[in-house]
Amino acid sequence: MKDVAALDAADPLRTMRERFELPAGVIYLDGNSLGPPPKAAFAELEQAARQEWGEGLIRSWNSAGWFTLTDVLGDRVGRLIGAEPGQTVVTDTTSINIYKALHAALALRPDRTVILAEADSFPTDLYMAESVAAARPGTSLRLMAADEPVESLVDERTAVVLVNHVDYRSGVLRDMASLTRRVQAAGALVVWEYLNGGPGAPAFVFVARRHHDRLVQPLSGWWAHAQPFAMANRYQPASGIRRMLCGTQPILSLRALKAALDVFDDVDLVELRAKSLALTGLFMDLLDPICREFGMHIITPRDPAIRGSHVSVACEHGYEVVQALIARGIIGDFRAPDIMRFGFTPLYLRYRDVLDAAKALADILRRGAWQEPRFAVRSLVA
Amino acid sequence: MKDVAALDAADPLRTMRERFELPAGVIYLDGNSLGPPPKAAFAELEQAARQEWGEGLIRSWNSAGWFTLTDVLGDRVGRLIGAEPGQTVVTDTTSINIYKALHAALALRPDRTVILAEADSFPTDLYMAESVAAARPGTSLRLMAADEPVESLVDERTAVVLVNHVDYRSGVLRDMASLTRRVQAAGALVVWEYLNGGPGAPAFVFVARRHHDRLVQPLSGWWAHAQPFAMANRYQPASGIRRMLCGTQPILSLRALKAALDVFDDVDLVELRAKSLALTGLFMDLLDPICREFGMHIITPRDPAIRGSHVSVACEHGYEVVQALIARGIIGDFRAPDIMRFGFTPLYLRYRDVLDAAKALADILRRGAWQEPRFAVRSLVA
Repeated sequence: MKDVAALDAADPLRTMRERFELPAGVIYLDGNSLGPPPKAAFAELEQAARQEWGEGLIRSWNSAGWFTLTDVLGDRVGRLIGAEPGQTVVTDTTSINIYKALHAALALRPDRTVILAEADSFPTDLYMAESVAAARPGTSLRLMAADEPVESLVDERTAVVLVNHVDYRSGVLRDMASLTRRVQAAGALVVWEYLNGGPGAPAFVFVARRHHDRLVQPLSGWWAHAQPFAMANRYQPASGIRRMLCGTQPILSLRALKAALDVFDDVDLVELRAKSLALTGLFMDLLDPICREFGMHIITPRDPAIRGSHVSVACEHGYEVVQALIARGIIGDFRAPDIMRFGFTPLYLRYRDVLDAAKALADILRRGAWQEPRFAVRSLVA
Repeated sequence: MKDVAALDAADPLRTMRERFELPAGVIYLDGNSLGPPPKAAFAELEQAARQEWGEGLIRSWNSAGWFTLTDVLGDRVGRLIGAEPGQTVVTDTTSINIYKALHAALALRPDRTVILAEADSFPTDLYMAESVAAARPGTSLRLMAADEPVESLVDERTAVVLVNHVDYRSGVLRDMASLTRRVQAAGALVVWEYLNGGPGAPAFVFVARRHHDRLVQPLSGWWAHAQPFAMANRYQPASGIRRMLCGTQPILSLRALKAALDVFDDVDLVELRAKSLALTGLFMDLLDPICREFGMHIITPRDPAIRGSHVSVACEHGYEVVQALIARGIIGDFRAPDIMRFGFTPLYLRYRDVLDAAKALADILRRGAWQEPRFAVRSLVA
């Protein structure tokens, strides 16, 4: 048995856990879908609601900086994804930003007619791609299987490749830098789907500065106008990344995101990634004998170079097992047809949580506890 | 002088003021742009953040009803606009919903090629209309002046008319029922821009049930899918109004909106409209002698049938006068080139507030107090 107490004591990120609100008795392995609130988010929301909205009222658009939150928070997300300032904005939803980015990419490659996307993408990506392809005559959406090498499919007809950094089912991580270089060398563009946030957190979009001057997207709302307060009746796009904005943004939800970015200010991303791999690696090591005993298998790669921050396990009765785990306070999730998915978020998870989760899983399987009828009732959001 | 104390005492809506958080010493005449928070919004946000997000975590998508908020709140907005259930959803931003609605309208009128919109629209409406027209070959955007009668411009080429219920500058109210009937009689559709909310409050969209089966809009995100959790890789639109949804929505901001709708549950809309007209009517009566004295004029109509809930006054030094009013705690706003705009929201304004605002305006003009240099500094959001 690993000495998880020693691992936790030596963890350079161990103090970050205190900055999150975590319910007692819960080991939360679904932060890849919805993260827990940073404690500071409550104060941030209260200030935004009581002081800025309640006291400042309309004046807060200026005095509280509401109008520039899209840019200020965008640059802070930019730091996390390695983008220089002025190329990232926080705005709208992921679906909508994919729509804008794909439209913009097609406009930048007018002579190319194919959008290439992963058949196993999170579906909203594909629905948006389908719509964008349908809007331009002669353009088609080509879906690629998980085992097809992207570069072999990119040719002179490919306008844009839409890929996920981490496959939401298997946990496979793509090499973003390398794939981007190879697709660009073939003359195409890449749109990456990336990161996650709070309950319906505002999304972000990054576009490299070299594209800004020719950037065109159809959701041309007033926040994307060169002079939003001139109230001109013709659209004139803003310069720079602001032309990826659209309409007025949900300030309260933006402020909860700000609290999360405050936490990341104190995080070394190299340490974060190292701990992520250590957590998923430990979980897979602990799972190996359990998988052998119960005929399950881990589908997430062992190779750290292509492993995201969750571990997916194929298990015939995965749905019921996940429900039995949740009943014990260990919250993971299930993806049809048979995938149990466990996310490991380095900022608030401890090595002992990983051990406890693996022990609980083994216990449920050994006792057959997942066979209780109450665990078979499927809910709307599985 | 009107007996405002008697009017306040007889006001059937007088108790509603207690349900809003209003800063001390402020008369808020900008609720048409950003309303003050209902007091219940703070508790609602705290519950959504601490209990549902913090304790419930991912489970709250089901247990707290997050996933159906778009529909549940949509039907509650529907009651306010006179829509039967199942035809209204709260989702995305006004800009984005206009984009969807115009695309859908063009698809329903494939043989017609003109979008007709008001040149004096709030600009984001026009930017979206410009984009939608550009996306379909042969389609054009025709702008109409404020004094052009809409029905004379609608012909067999008109696919859709985009109009505002209340002109944001002048306060002119359109007769929605009558105009809709006349446009529809000419075979075209109407998209109305309507209502307002919190700081970046989620918007809503209503589509009459008879159009649902043929409703197509390009922002085909996973929330608009027939089976969002089937994770199918082809888009299949939901039945009914849900096909106007797109991606995951900002739950925290939705919850603040819920608190506002709770207040409206106890409001008789006929009383609301009557008080709105009484407040704007009183303000105009009080302004008449001031306008004569200082060469200003009221541009909002006297006729209650075509008067919204704000009063706009053309005034050469309007910008500075509005700033001087704000410095005294009377918050209205200014619209270029010379319009002072005062919004009267019946739920929290008293007749004595109207009197105090008119008195303060007269005092500022008589003393020339607006000429202080500090009132001439223009800020980003005027």
